Amino acid sequence: MPTYQAPVKDTLFVLNDVLGFERYSNLPGFADSSGDMLEAILGEAARVAEEVYQPTNRQGDLEGCHRNADGSVTTPKSFKAAFDAYREGGWMGLAMPGEYGGQGLPYTVHQAAGEYFCSANMALTMYSGLTHGAIAAILVHGTDEQKSTFIPKMIEGTWTGTMNLTEPHCGTDLGLMRTKAVPDGKGAYKISGQKIFISAGEHDMSENIIHLVLARAEGSPEGIKGVSLFIVPKFILDENGNPGKRNGVSCGSIEEKMGIHGNSTCVMNYDEAEGYLIGEINRGMNAMFVMMNEARLGVGLQGLSVSEVAYQNAANYARDRLQGRALTGPKFPDKKADPIIVHPDIRRVLMTARAINEAGRALVLWSAIQADISRSGPDEKERERAEDHMALLTPVIKGVLTDKGFDIAVMAQQVFGGHGYIEEHGMSQFVRDARIAMIYEGANGIQALDLVGRKLGQHGGRGVQAFFKEVGEFCEENRSNEALAPFTKGLKKGLNDLQAATMWLMQNGMKNPDNAGAASTDYMHLFGLVALGYMWARMVKAAQEKLAAGADGSEEFMNNKITTGRFYMERIMPESSAHLARINAGADSMMALSAEAF
Amino acid sequence: MPTYQAPVKDTLFVLNDVLGFERYSNLPGFADSSGDMLEAILGEAARVAEEVYQPTNRQGDLEGCHRNADGSVTTPKSFKAAFDAYREGGWMGLAMPGEYGGQGLPYTVHQAAGEYFCSANMALTMYSGLTHGAIAAILVHGTDEQKSTFIPKMIEGTWTGTMNLTEPHCGTDLGLMRTKAVPDGKGAYKISGQKIFISAGEHDMSENIIHLVLARAEGSPEGIKGVSLFIVPKFILDENGNPGKRNGVSCGSIEEKMGIHGNSTCVMNYDEAEGYLIGEINRGMNAMFVMMNEARLGVGLQGLSVSEVAYQNAANYARDRLQGRALTGPKFPDKKADPIIVHPDIRRVLMTARAINEAGRALVLWSAIQADISRSGPDEKERERAEDHMALLTPVIKGVLTDKGFDIAVMAQQVFGGHGYIEEHGMSQFVRDARIAMIYEGANGIQALDLVGRKLGQHGGRGVQAFFKEVGEFCEENRSNEALAPFTKGLKKGLNDLQAATMWLMQNGMKNPDNAGAASTDYMHLFGLVALGYMWARMVKAAQEKLAAGADGSEEFMNNKITTGRFYMERIMPESSAHLARINAGADSMMALSAEAF
Repeated sequence: MPTYQAPVKDTLFVLNDVLGFERYSNLPGFADSSGDMLEAILGEAARVAEEVYQPTNRQGDLEGCHRNADGSVTTPKSFKAAFDAYREGGWMGLAMPGEYGGQGLPYTVHQAAGEYFCSANMALTMYSGLTHGAIAAILVHGTDEQKSTFIPKMIEGTWTGTMNLTEPHCGTDLGLMRTKAVPDGKGAYKISGQKIFISAGEHDMSENIIHLVLARAEGSPEGIKGVSLFIVPKFILDENGNPGKRNGVSCGSIEEKMGIHGNSTCVMNYDEAEGYLIGEINRGMNAMFVMMNEARLGVGLQGLSVSEVAYQNAANYARDRLQGRALTGPKFPDKKADPIIVHPDIRRVLMTARAINEAGRALVLWSAIQADISRSGPDEKERERAEDHMALLTPVIKGVLTDKGFDIAVMAQQVFGGHGYIEEHGMSQFVRDARIAMIYEGANGIQALDLVGRKLGQHGGRGVQAFFKEVGEFCEENRSNEALAPFTKGLKKGLNDLQAATMWLMQNGMKNPDNAGAASTDYMHLFGLVALGYMWARMVKAAQEKLAAGADGSEEFMNNKITTGRFYMERIMPESSAHLARINAGADSMMALSAEAF
Repeated sequence: MPTYQAPVKDTLFVLNDVLGFERYSNLPGFADSSGDMLEAILGEAARVAEEVYQPTNRQGDLEGCHRNADGSVTTPKSFKAAFDAYREGGWMGLAMPGEYGGQGLPYTVHQAAGEYFCSANMALTMYSGLTHGAIAAILVHGTDEQKSTFIPKMIEGTWTGTMNLTEPHCGTDLGLMRTKAVPDGKGAYKISGQKIFISAGEHDMSENIIHLVLARAEGSPEGIKGVSLFIVPKFILDENGNPGKRNGVSCGSIEEKMGIHGNSTCVMNYDEAEGYLIGEINRGMNAMFVMMNEARLGVGLQGLSVSEVAYQNAANYARDRLQGRALTGPKFPDKKADPIIVHPDIRRVLMTARAINEAGRALVLWSAIQADISRSGPDEKERERAEDHMALLTPVIKGVLTDKGFDIAVMAQQVFGGHGYIEEHGMSQFVRDARIAMIYEGANGIQALDLVGRKLGQHGGRGVQAFFKEVGEFCEENRSNEALAPFTKGLKKGLNDLQAATMWLMQNGMKNPDNAGAASTDYMHLFGLVALGYMWARMVKAAQEKLAAGADGSEEFMNNKITTGRFYMERIMPESSAHLARINAGADSMMALSAEAF
C-alpha cells in the first residue's frame, strides 16, 4: 500500500528561508500565519492529509463513482467522512474572506497546505478545489446578494461548486457553444443544453451544488462574444436561502476514465434549469477566467503533488527491495542482495524527482506570494508587477509541472519493475491520476499557446522583461559568490537560451504565426527550465547562508539541497539547448505535409 | 472506436528500397518471399490484423481475463476465434523450420508482419509471441526428441509456450531464485515453487501449455550459476505424445494490471510438477537467453506497434475534430471551425510520431535482416558481424523503442484532449498497454546497463566500432551529395556526440563503475538517436534516388519521407547534446545523498 508523508520541512524552508515569508507581514493574513503559527498550520494540514485523506486514496480508485437509476451519484464510501474532516477543520475557508466565514489567511498558506491534501488524495481534493474556483468567480464578479447567498455555505463546504464549460463538440473553442439561456421574465434565465466532463457535477457529499455554467443568452451574438456565465444551483433556494425544489439540472451519465476514479466526472443535462447571470451579459469568459486561472494553478499543484507522492513511494521501495549488487561491490554483504537504491539508474530517477519537485514547490509558493500581492498588496506598482508575474507564470506552472509530474510518476512506477504495473502497489494509480492534469483546464498545448501567443506580448512584453531582469540581476549580484558560481553559471546559460528563443519568436512569430505555434511547447518548457533553475539558485543560496550561519541540526538537509541543485544544473538544465534548437528550426518541416498524408 | 491500417507501403519501402531485401536471396527463405510474394504476404498479414485482430482489441481490454474457481482461465470471448485465424493462416510457423512444419521464411518477414498483428491487438499477440520465444529456446538447446515432441504442435499453435523467470522476491536478480527441481529417478525432475508475472500462464486458447521454467536443481550451487531450465507441460504427454494427465502446475491467481488486460498474467504454482531439463544443468540462463533475446526484440516491436496505432488514431482525430482556427487564418471558412490538424502543436505530435515510428520500423527490419544473417548466413565473418549487431542493438531496440513508443502513445492521447482520457476512444488503452513494454523482459534501466556494462566492451568493442565505422562511412561516402548534406550533417553531429560519450565511458566507467551506471540510460537513448538518425539518412537517400529515377506515382510518398527525415534532424537529433552533457556530469551528484535522505 502506498504511503505519504507531507514534506513540511521542505515547505518551511522555501517559505521562510528562501522566500522570506515574514517580510510580507504588510499583506493581510501573513502576520497571523508566520513563524510557529505557520508550522502549526502546516503540521495540522499534514496530519489530516496523512491520516485522513491518504488512507482513502487507493480505495477511491478501486470503487470509483456510480450513477444510480435516479440520477444520483454515489462516491467512494470513505470520501464523505474524509471531506467532513476537511471542512470541519476549516480548510475550505483557510484563505477566504472573514466576512463570509473564512479565516482570511494568505492564499500562499492555502497552496502550501493544498499540496499535501492533493498528494494524499487527488480525486478527493477536486471536490474542494472546484468549489474554491467557483467561490473566486462569485467573489470577483457576483453581486453582493449573490455573494452573501452562496459564498458562506460554500466556504463551510456544505455546498460545493463546479465549472461547466465543455460541450461534446467544443472544448478549447468555446465560441462553438450551444447551451442556451432564455430570460424567464422574472430576472432569471432558463438554461438548456448539455455539458460534459463536469468534475464533481453530481455527488453525495454536499447539500447543494452550485454550478457555474457558460451559456449563450437568447439574442446574443455568435462565437465567444455571446457567451455569458450563470449560477445554476442543483436545488433552488427557498425564501430562507435553504436548498428547496430540485432545479432542472441532472447527471446523465458518468465517464469511464483512465484515472481519478474517485472524482465523479459527469455529463450534465440542463433542461430549463433556473440560472442567474453572474457578471455582465456576454462577458462570461471574463468571469470564467477568474475561475480558470485559479483552477490552472490548482492543476499545476496537482502535477507537483502526485509527483511528490509517487517519488516518496519509489524511494521507499528502492530502500526496501533487495535485488542485485552495487556496481562498486556489495554494500550489504550480509544480506542476499543490496537494496536497489545503490544503483545509479535508480538514483537518477529519485534525484530527478527531487530536483523537479523541490523547485516546483518553490515556484508554486513564490507565485502564490505574488498572487497574494496582486490581490491585496498596498502598492499599485507592486500589484501590477505581481499580476504580470501571475499572467506569465500561470501557464508555465500548469503546463510544465503537470508534464513533469506525469513523467516523474511514470519514472517512479518504473522503479517498481513489474510490481509497478500491477494495481496492487498503487503506482499505476499515480500515473493514471497524473495523466489528466496535462489535459484539463486547458490542455498543455493550449497553455503553451497562451504563453507564447498572449502572455509574452502583454503590455509590450513588460512581464517577460521583468522576469528576465530579475533572473539576470540575481546572477549578476552573485557574480563574486564563488560557492554559488556553478549554479548561476547554469542558470545564466538557460536564461541566455530563453532570451535567444524569445528574440527568435519576436522576429519570426509575427512574420509567420505558425512559427510561434511550432515553438510553443518547447518555449514553455524552456521557460519552465529557467524558472525552476532560478528557484534552485535561490534555494542553494539560502542553504549556503543557513550553513554559514550554523544550520543547527539541519546541516544534512541543507547540504542535500545544494547537491540536488547541482544535479538540476548538471542533468536537467542542459535540456535548454535542445529546446532552443527546436524553436530555431521553425515551422517548415512541421507544416509541410498535406493533412491527408497523415 | 479506434481503427488501424497496416503501413504495408512503408514496410515495403524499407525492405525493398532502403535495405535491398532482394540482395539477400542467398539466405534461406528470402528468394521465396521477395517481390510480389513479399507484398502478398504482408497484404494478407495486414488483412488479418485489420479485420480479425483489431476488432477484438478494445473488447479484450474491457473484458480482461478471469480465473475460475477450478483454476482455469477464461480469456476475452473474441480472442480464441482470432487466434484460430492466426494459426490457421500459418502465421505461427512463418519463419519456423520446414522440418517441424514451419514455412521456413525469413525472420525479417515474420517481424514485418508481426508489427501489424501487435498494432491490432498487443495483448493477443503475446500468446503467440511467447510461444515463438519458447520454440526458439527448444530449437537451440533442446534434444532432438524434445524438438520433435514439442515443436510441431507449438508451430501449429495448438500448444502455446511461456517463460517462467520471476519470483515474488526476484525479478532482475535471478540468482535469488528459490524454485527447486528434484530428480525423480526416472530422468525427469519434480519442480516446486512459485513464479509470478507469467504471461499466458494459463488460458483457454490452446490444448497444452509448454512452460519453460527456471529452477535450481537439488545440490546445485547458490546464485545464478545454479539455475537450470526445464520444460514443464501443463498436461503430461501420453505414450502417443498427446496431452494426458494434468501436471502439478496451476494458476494461483491473475494479476490486476494497468493494461494488457487481454493477456492472462498469472501467478503459477509448481507443486512437484514433472519437468525435463533442457540444455545443460546449471546453464539455465544460457538457454533462457535465447528466449529472452527473442522476446526483447518482440517487446521493442511492441513499442513501435502501439506507437503506430496510437499515432494513426490521433491523426484521424486531428483531421476530423473541428476546433478553433488556424493561426494563419481560417483554412475552412465555410465550416464552424478548422480541423485541429491545422495547428502546429498538433503537427508537432504527429510529425514526432512519424519520425520515430518510421525510423523505428527501419531499425527493426534492418536488425531482423542481421538476425537472419546471424542464423544462416553462409559466411562466417558476416555471421559474426551480424551477431555483434544483434548483441549491440537488441537492448537499444528494446529500451528506446518502448520508451519512445510510450511517449508517443501519451502524446497521441493528448491530441484527443479530454476525450483521450475517457476509455471510450481507446487512447487510454494504448497508453496503458504501451507502459508494460518499458518494464518486462528486463526493465529499460537493465537494457541500458546491458548495453553499457556488457555489450559495449564485448570482443574488445568490436561491435560498437563496426557500428561507428558503418555510420561514419555512410556520411563520408555521401559527402559530395548536396541533397543529402543536411541529413548527414545532423547524423554526423549525433555520431560525434555518441563517440565522445563512448570515450568518456571508457575513461571514467572503469575508474568508477557508478559513472557507467549513471550514464547508462542517457547513453542508450543517445545510441538510439544515432541509430534512428542513420535509418533516416538511409531512407532519405533511398527516397531521393527513387525520385530521381521517377517515383512513378509515389512522388508525394517519397517527398514526405524526406520532409519527415528533415523533421527528425531538426527536432529530435538535437537531443544528443543534452544526453552527452548528462553523461559527462558523472555520478557524483547522483550518488551523494545517503539512502535515508530520500
